[in-house]
Amino acid sequence: MKSQAVFYHAGCPVCVAAEHQLLDLIDTDKVNLEVVHLGESKNRLAAAKTQGVKSVPALVVDGQVLHINFGAAIEALE
Amino acid sequence: MKSQAVFYHAGCPVCVAAEHQLLDLIDTDKVNLEVVHLGESKNRLAAAKTQGVKSVPALVVDGQVLHINFGAAIEALE
Repeated sequence: MKSQAVFYHAGCPVCVAAEHQLLDLIDTDKVNLEVVHLGESKNRLAAAKTQGVKSVPALVVDGQVLHINFGAAIEALE
Repeated sequence: MKSQAVFYHAGCPVCVAAEHQLLDLIDTDKVNLEVVHLGESKNRLAAAKTQGVKSVPALVVDGQVLHINFGAAIEALE
């Protein structure tokens, strides 16, 4: 079964850099990858917080949160 | 040209979790991936620090450091 991954970002420089460095390496045969801009899609904030996202950029893989570097706290996007 | 990536870890629980969540998704057709245990390979510590690794687990992709969650400070491994 494919993994489910969501990359949460907010368009910040750290987010954009991480997106380019990391997402290009991901094997889309193994994972369904969705990219969500939390600054634009504020309706996704609650779910991200429930999953444990505390800052962006973050990659949530099958429900497990990987915080990658630090661009912005999620509270700053609300 | 393939990207060059090094996943630095120290066998800590956060490291092991990140390794499983992230490395399984990486497309090895796109990237040459090396996994380095800095607790065991202390001769790699200096190079990791020079690249900017401040904590483990970390993934260095073509010289750019992605710190992933926080397992241990690199100073704790010296």
